[in-house]
Parts: sequence; C-alpha cells; structure tokens
Amino acid sequence: MIDPAAELEITAFEWVPKFAQGYVRDLRLRWACEEAKLPYSERLISAVKRPEWYFAEQPWGQVPVLRDGEITVFESGACLMHLGEKSEALLPRDPAARARVVSWLFAALNSLEPMAFEMARVAFFSAGEEWAPLRRPSLEKQIAGRLAPVERYMEASDWIAGDFSIADIAMVTVLRDIASNISLDPYPALSAYLERAVARPAFAQAMADQLAPFASNSPPE
Amino acid sequence: MIDPAAELEITAFEWVPKFAQGYVRDLRLRWACEEAKLPYSERLISAVKRPEWYFAEQPWGQVPVLRDGEITVFESGACLMHLGEKSEALLPRDPAARARVVSWLFAALNSLEPMAFEMARVAFFSAGEEWAPLRRPSLEKQIAGRLAPVERYMEASDWIAGDFSIADIAMVTVLRDIASNISLDPYPALSAYLERAVARPAFAQAMADQLAPFASNSPPE
Repeated sequence: MIDPAAELEITAFEWVPKFAQGYVRDLRLRWACEEAKLPYSERLISAVKRPEWYFAEQPWGQVPVLRDGEITVFESGACLMHLGEKSEALLPRDPAARARVVSWLFAALNSLEPMAFEMARVAFFSAGEEWAPLRRPSLEKQIAGRLAPVERYMEASDWIAGDFSIADIAMVTVLRDIASNISLDPYPALSAYLERAVARPAFAQAMADQLAPFASNSPPE
Repeated sequence: MIDPAAELEITAFEWVPKFAQGYVRDLRLRWACEEAKLPYSERLISAVKRPEWYFAEQPWGQVPVLRDGEITVFESGACLMHLGEKSEALLPRDPAARARVVSWLFAALNSLEPMAFEMARVAFFSAGEEWAPLRRPSLEKQIAGRLAPVERYMEASDWIAGDFSIADIAMVTVLRDIASNISLDPYPALSAYLERAVARPAFAQAMADQLAPFASNSPPE
C-alpha cells in the first residue's frame, strides 16, 4: 500500500518507455511490500535524465533504492533481503527454511537472471546487431539447461522454497522476463508457477502501482 | 582452517581442469571461513561425473554447497550470507553498515558477474564461435560502464562497503574473473583493490586449500 507518510521508501522511475513498463525492478519491492502489508512511500526520479545526486546512492543510477529511516539499500536482491527481515510472510524464521529461501533467491539472481539479461539483449536491445542471431541458439540451450531442473522441481511444489517468499518474487520476475523473449511452453510446471504467482492480488497491486505514474508523466510525442 | 571434524562443511570438486583451478566458487566460502577463523570440513565430489544424489542439494550440480548441521545452503552468495551471520569479521551488526554490505554483495553478483560470465564465454569457452568476437566490443563497453563508477568509488576506499566483508569476497572474485579476460589497467583503484585483497593471508590459505586436492586427484593423461 502506498502511503506518502510511510518511512519505508521505494525509489522508482516516473516514466519508462513502453517495453519496460511493468518490468522495472522496483516491481519486486512493491510486490514484497504488498505481500507483507508494509506501507511504503514512493520517490520518483527521471529515467531519461537521472539526477546527479542519485549516483551517490546507486553507483549505476539504477532503480530501485530502498530507504528505511537511516538505512539505504540498493540492488533489488538486497532490498528483498531487507524487506524479508521485516516479515515472516516474506522470509521464514526457521534457519533451515530461511537458508532454502536465501539459496533460491541467489539462484534466481545469479544462476538464471544473467542469461535472462543476455537473452533480452539478443532478442531485443541488440537484435539488429550481427552477433545477436548467431548467439541465440547457444544461449537458448544454456537457458534450457538451467530451466529443466527447476521445471522438474516445480512439478511437486507450489512455491520455490516452501511457502511463498522473496525467493518466488525473484524467480517469478526472472521467469517473466525470460518468457517475454522465449516460449515457456516446454515447461508446463514453470508456466503454471508463473501464472499462479502473477494471479496473486499483491502482484496485481504492485503492477498497477508501478504503471500509475507512467500515464501522467508520459513525455510529449 | 580445514578440520575434518568441523560441523560446517563445504562441498568442492576433487579435480577441475587447469583453467578452472583457483577460480571455482568454493574459493569464496573457504576465504570467508579463513577471515572469520571458522573451521570447516570438505566434501569433495567429482566434477567430471557429478554424483546423482548431489542434484537433490544443488539443482544444477554446481559447487559450492554449504552444510551446517541441519542447514543446507547453495549458491555462493547465499553461503556468504550464511557465513556472514556467524561473524562480524564478515558482516557488520549495525543495520546501516549491514545494508551497505548486502547491497554491494548483490551488486557484485547481479550487476557485475553476469557480464563476467558472458566475457568468459566470449574470450574463452566460445572463443572459436562466429558470434564471440563480434560480441566482444559491446560487452567490453558494458563492462566498462559498470566498472567506471566503482573505480571512482574505490579511489577513496580500501574496501567496498566499510571494513572488509563478504561484499569484498564477492566483488574481488568477480574482478579477478574479469581480469583474467580483459585488462584492468584503465582502473588503477580497482587494480590496487584487487591486489590488496588477494594479499590477505586468508585469501592465500583459501587458494592453497582449493588447489591441494587437484594435485592428488589429477586424472591420468
């Protein structure tokens, strides 16, 4: 829930081009806040001309940044860890269960997302460059090698690490990025997992709240 | 310190080909254990024929896995978080300082390492493929874009997030991977940082301990 008086504050972009709408990484934090019923305020910055002062908080000018009183966190994974500590709805307190969640959180961001980044480049950002279509087959094979074991694992699980957690927020947003460039049809369990996750009311609210400012801040054509 | 009786256990490979020696990800955990003086035992598995049972602990059969009594952790980043909770020498207890460390830990693994992975492919694993040399210039530019702000930041810092921490272990091992494929000469502060880090006795011990089993388990020529 967005509450301008909330101490917890998420930095997001006031507007991004159509292709990025619904995919900017502050979605992960908004989603986590909705799941845990943590009210947060927004700080919206320009993506087109990122304010100079912002680079002191985020070395590359990326979003999100999460502020919580005196605490500043950057990188969506680190922000998810910070929010996880605030609510058992996001990160269990039992040490073994917690370890599984943190393992899958890093797995999503370090073993899967790197290939998702590269596929976005191959299929979209650099699609017109000579190397991109040449790279695609081997990259698809790499992604398939990473997805297949997760598909088998998800055949017997609703969520990636026990109950719903920050690991699902990371994994589902990575799968969603992958699915925007390659078909998940060969992976029925992952497809069902993705559908199940985005059907959660907290996801829908987070998505609506990311999109809301884009309409009013759209640049002149 | 390796102690076969220690409850903390790191899974590593008994042997890897020359190019990977000194670069396998269990190095991060061994380094952390040495810094924090946490004794650990080793469980060595075959990298060539990974045991079937291991995939129940690690979806892709990668190392490391960290076991700590009933707790099993995979992904080196998650293992570093687990070890961090055990020692202030790895992760500070002050919430703002902790947030900086966790932010830079994820930054190393999600904003820099993806490009390091791809550069290893371009410069080594797929170097003979048609797309690789075509991809190299844009990838070098991406890496430069990520390194430049960290270079400026490190001009005024000894370590990446306050005192030495797990964020340095992640960042330095990523820089070391990058440096094995492209020159860090344009980045004097990062070069000095890398030198300063690998000069730590804990790094040298971790390196020696990763390499030790490779000599005795080398396959017949």
